Amino acid sequence: MIELRSDTFTVPTPKMRKAMAAAPVGDDVYGEDPTVRRLEEVAADLLGKESACLMPSGTMANLAALLAQAPRGSTAIVGAESDIYVYEAAGASVCGGIGYLPVSVEADGSLRMAELVDALSIDQDDPQFARPAVICLEDTQNRRCGAVVPQDHLGAVYAQARHHGVAVHLDGARLFNAAVAAGRPAAELARGADTVQVCLSKGLSAPIGSMLAGRADAVANARRARKMLGGGMRQAGVIAAAGLIALTEMTDRLADDHALARRLADGLATVSDLVVENPRPQTNIVMFRAADPRLSWQSIVREAASLGLRVGELGHGRIRAVTHRGVTREQIDQSVEILSQAVRRALAASSTRQPTGA
Amino acid sequence: MIELRSDTFTVPTPKMRKAMAAAPVGDDVYGEDPTVRRLEEVAADLLGKESACLMPSGTMANLAALLAQAPRGSTAIVGAESDIYVYEAAGASVCGGIGYLPVSVEADGSLRMAELVDALSIDQDDPQFARPAVICLEDTQNRRCGAVVPQDHLGAVYAQARHHGVAVHLDGARLFNAAVAAGRPAAELARGADTVQVCLSKGLSAPIGSMLAGRADAVANARRARKMLGGGMRQAGVIAAAGLIALTEMTDRLADDHALARRLADGLATVSDLVVENPRPQTNIVMFRAADPRLSWQSIVREAASLGLRVGELGHGRIRAVTHRGVTREQIDQSVEILSQAVRRALAASSTRQPTGA
Amino acid sequence: MIELRSDTFTVPTPKMRKAMAAAPVGDDVYGEDPTVRRLEEVAADLLGKESACLMPSGTMANLAALLAQAPRGSTAIVGAESDIYVYEAAGASVCGGIGYLPVSVEADGSLRMAELVDALSIDQDDPQFARPAVICLEDTQNRRCGAVVPQDHLGAVYAQARHHGVAVHLDGARLFNAAVAAGRPAAELARGADTVQVCLSKGLSAPIGSMLAGRADAVANARRARKMLGGGMRQAGVIAAAGLIALTEMTDRLADDHALARRLADGLATVSDLVVENPRPQTNIVMFRAADPRLSWQSIVREAASLGLRVGELGHGRIRAVTHRGVTREQIDQSVEILSQAVRRALAASSTRQPTGA
Amino acid sequence: MIELRSDTFTVPTPKMRKAMAAAPVGDDVYGEDPTVRRLEEVAADLLGKESACLMPSGTMANLAALLAQAPRGSTAIVGAESDIYVYEAAGASVCGGIGYLPVSVEADGSLRMAELVDALSIDQDDPQFARPAVICLEDTQNRRCGAVVPQDHLGAVYAQARHHGVAVHLDGARLFNAAVAAGRPAAELARGADTVQVCLSKGLSAPIGSMLAGRADAVANARRARKMLGGGMRQAGVIAAAGLIALTEMTDRLADDHALARRLADGLATVSDLVVENPRPQTNIVMFRAADPRLSWQSIVREAASLGLRVGELGHGRIRAVTHRGVTREQIDQSVEILSQAVRRALAASSTRQPTGA
Repeated sequence: MIELRSDTFTVPTPKMRKAMAAAPVGDDVYGEDPTVRRLEEVAADLLGKESACLMPSGTMANLAALLAQAPRGSTAIVGAESDIYVYEAAGASVCGGIGYLPVSVEADGSLRMAELVDALSIDQDDPQFARPAVICLEDTQNRRCGAVVPQDHLGAVYAQARHHGVAVHLDGARLFNAAVAAGRPAAELARGADTVQVCLSKGLSAPIGSMLAGRADAVANARRARKMLGGGMRQAGVIAAAGLIALTEMTDRLADDHALARRLADGLATVSDLVVENPRPQTNIVMFRAADPRLSWQSIVREAASLGLRVGELGHGRIRAVTHRGVTREQIDQSVEILSQAVRRALAASSTRQPTGA
Repeated sequence: MIELRSDTFTVPTPKMRKAMAAAPVGDDVYGEDPTVRRLEEVAADLLGKESACLMPSGTMANLAALLAQAPRGSTAIVGAESDIYVYEAAGASVCGGIGYLPVSVEADGSLRMAELVDALSIDQDDPQFARPAVICLEDTQNRRCGAVVPQDHLGAVYAQARHHGVAVHLDGARLFNAAVAAGRPAAELARGADTVQVCLSKGLSAPIGSMLAGRADAVANARRARKMLGGGMRQAGVIAAAGLIALTEMTDRLADDHALARRLADGLATVSDLVVENPRPQTNIVMFRAADPRLSWQSIVREAASLGLRVGELGHGRIRAVTHRGVTREQIDQSVEILSQAVRRALAASSTRQPTGA
Repeated sequence: MIELRSDTFTVPTPKMRKAMAAAPVGDDVYGEDPTVRRLEEVAADLLGKESACLMPSGTMANLAALLAQAPRGSTAIVGAESDIYVYEAAGASVCGGIGYLPVSVEADGSLRMAELVDALSIDQDDPQFARPAVICLEDTQNRRCGAVVPQDHLGAVYAQARHHGVAVHLDGARLFNAAVAAGRPAAELARGADTVQVCLSKGLSAPIGSMLAGRADAVANARRARKMLGGGMRQAGVIAAAGLIALTEMTDRLADDHALARRLADGLATVSDLVVENPRPQTNIVMFRAADPRLSWQSIVREAASLGLRVGELGHGRIRAVTHRGVTREQIDQSVEILSQAVRRALAASSTRQPTGA
Repeated sequence: MIELRSDTFTVPTPKMRKAMAAAPVGDDVYGEDPTVRRLEEVAADLLGKESACLMPSGTMANLAALLAQAPRGSTAIVGAESDIYVYEAAGASVCGGIGYLPVSVEADGSLRMAELVDALSIDQDDPQFARPAVICLEDTQNRRCGAVVPQDHLGAVYAQARHHGVAVHLDGARLFNAAVAAGRPAAELARGADTVQVCLSKGLSAPIGSMLAGRADAVANARRARKMLGGGMRQAGVIAAAGLIALTEMTDRLADDHALARRLADGLATVSDLVVENPRPQTNIVMFRAADPRLSWQSIVREAASLGLRVGELGHGRIRAVTHRGVTREQIDQSVEILSQAVRRALAASSTRQPTGA
């Protein structure tokens, strides 16, 4: 099977496995795991932040960041098409009594500025309104085809946040993809963020974990929240050892994933019944849909799977393909073939079906 | 002062005051206040529901309805331009661990159906998604100029809800306005709703309270939630006595408020620098804004106040005027005059100000 | 029926009813109800606090006070035998993400000091522990037979709280009973508390409402919470009018209730098969139980009811009788008679019952 | 250093490290990690339950079990001296709106039955009371010197729970210690529990993770909660590989830890100024305190550390020593020596200090 559902399917490299087996460890709940400590220093440094904390997942990193910075009864301003809003089970409302306040996300991954300013400008003294406490950015923006959020938009949001006295959390699950695509250091993208989350898994290929970096007090609060949520792990050095390799040796290789995504998009452009949403992918995500309204995404995904390719849906009926270390150039070319054939099969199936009511 | 900020400014009628003074009472926390019991029966009957419960406010009625029907970790689908979402301080997230899931609201007060269906169609087995538990409707729709939600839209939403196994809560703070405007009984508008909230104050003029009516089990749950929230009141019969008059004698008179709103809209149509958003008001709300971009709503509201008229802002810089029992036809005509003058004064003030950077 | 279940059964006085009917009112959600404003000033003054806020119930006053002073994830230290812990449906955990931390309550209404100090002395930096944010006192202590908490204990708790940097909330639902019994002003009892709640209903006889008084910032926060919880009421002046009479004219009369309670306790001391828990009641509560283990509290309560007296259970199988304005000296004497007869009847019934398995 | 602070300090065995390096993995968030799946089957089987779920920590396993079985506004009955109540940061209140309802814990690890029955017997229809939804047991009972909870007590609690229609969650962080000590299979101890948690770390020596096993529906709910909390991990097979060895090869060896604990207790019995709380340890925990009231636990812990032994405090000033795979018989004998010397040093230091006020 060719696996393009997500870059989360990457498996640890042999070097990572060796490092995990050899890692010096301690009880990290007591703060005594040397490998975790080193990873947290490296992450803080790489992201230009005062401190960092290992989390078992990006979901917990995001959730802990919100709990750390948004008091009960406040709101978190989020992109309506952001992962933190769509895919994280309303965790901040459940665990934090925080309201999500979604604003529109532009095609380039920007938050719609007028809505953001509106959301920030409520009358703070009016008890009818929950007060905004934090703005969440996402870079790259998954549901906008992995768009690299424009640098000046990041800056504008950081400025608005400062002006209104709210925090910024940057969901950088794929921040290194953005950094590589933009040719800038990750720390630069995250400069104005109070907290930033990066995944060690996904393209960087570590098996488990995300880093939350940020202002020392915010990270300390998030570390407290981590314990309550159940993210305090004992000899976490076994995970951290792979994470160290992910952060120090695997970021540059993301360029390969991006090249594969462009190759895939170019290939799909030639498939007559598919419309590619981002014909020129900025990072490792390609989105497309059937041109023919008779075709459901389900039918294409199903046919592709039967032909040896796994892809998934990502909102609004769009199919997403994500490139990563576990897929070759040849497989990308095969994927184009398979999708072309899958569409033909799906079309054939749909036309043999009797129309309802006939 | 002419008071058009809200129909919540209505004061109890002399008859209400007399009834409050004479009401038989008991301890309603023990379920022994006869006047409250009667009010609850009358309300259930009027709204065509199995049972009803007196609440100290519409906010609590809405909140208790959500707590009663949406478990922790589920979502409440709400209009992005609904009062329950905008003005109730994220209470369901705070007190209930419920995520708000806003969908767009059309100009006629309908929820955008495609978004609603999308929101209902998530994969129930995928733990990334919070599951929708309840849809909230609002009729009349305050932030859509008091629109009467089309009857067939209500029906369509009730059908969708049944199809997807979620509940419907109808925020009918001004449901009797909708009923009067539509010429249908309130019970008919609420027919498919599991719970419905109506305010005794606002146009109906009772001093305090809202009724939550609905399925017996939902109302029983909401009654439990009421105690926890602190809405259990002792000799609540003193309030209920006024509420009985509100429900039984004050609904027909809402037609007068609607006539005044139309008169106001007609008048404002003649004021050159104002744009009336709903030139033909369906109920008791008129919204307008300055045509001239130099004019802020703040300046108009301020000038009007200095001339003896109180109006307020209601989102997106629109000014809202609400008609009610406490305002006369003559005052409506004066209001048009005052607003006309207020705009001229505001314009004059804005043109004498030095442009920035000059 | 003689009603001794609770002093919450008191009905408003004729003067209160007249005041309610005549009260000047406004929309209190806009802060414009003059009677509410006056009541809030009077209450703040009487309790020696910076400001005060009208609440629809003591439950909400307590809940809002906790929300105002205890952040998500902190704990509220409460008496294990306090109303806020036992009877308020875990509201602070539900609405606030606050953990209750119960400590033992001594017979005199004091918190067990060693447990209190232990609870305050946790390692603040250890994320295993939720941090205490507020201590709750209750005066009089309902489940300790209406005990007046010793003045030096109040002082000791206030001192501990200051030392550890936590707030104190005083649940003074019956604080005026304590004040009258102790011969000290209520403000003196509440001196070290950051917030204090007093009920307008109960012995003071207003139909609805409680006052939360305290530091200006805490009350402002609680007022915000009130709106979210649904305690913002419109023409609340109708309630406040009765509340003003309650606070200014009804506190002294509590001495009569206390005298009745002593009379009742004296009478019950002569009933051979009853054990009075507090033979010398300090305030308006008398607790007793059957001496004979064959007698359940249910049987006594049932028999008493059939004879014309209502009493209730209040934890651990104890029966509680509460004196108040709605009961006369003669009725107290009759109550003794009835209870004596109820015990005899219950005993007779229990001895005629066939033992199981005979 | 001799490490007796906790058995959580155990490091993975060489075989575990090898297995981690070689484990077949997949994306467990998609349910496709074969090693995790196998571990979950093995755990369910071993614990006699329908299904099981890997969690990053015991804290999350406990929290998810509560979220899965206790709705918002219910209570979890817990031991006042249980880890879930004392050390887990009030997580169920924060994330679940669940109230903790602590009952006393006897010296043998039993819940005080009268309090338990009382807690279960509240009037379900009275909205003043939060309804109990789940009872939490802990076996072995950490803060009762690692006591093995009597089998008949487990049975009695399971029966009460069934009778009252509430669930039972068994915090079996050290359940295999109990099983080994009792000479019964773990599944037997957990037989009546709806859910049971066991730690893979602690004595079993895996680096990370706990298993939650139980009824299929409860585990499915907990798995949902795990995602929201951020416990969904990607290639978790690397952790699971060690967990498999923990469950299948490491349980029997806990007998060695127990023998070491007895040896330690025997040794400490000879130290004149120490009082051993459990002179005949049932499992791997020994608790003791200074006989001399002048000695603080802090001073003993400090002196011991300076002499090469780490121990910690565990509530009420008691010092806890936990035996595990990382400590030898010789080190146990040395530990006795060190503690003896530490006490002498601490005593000497305390007597040279000038008494305050001298």
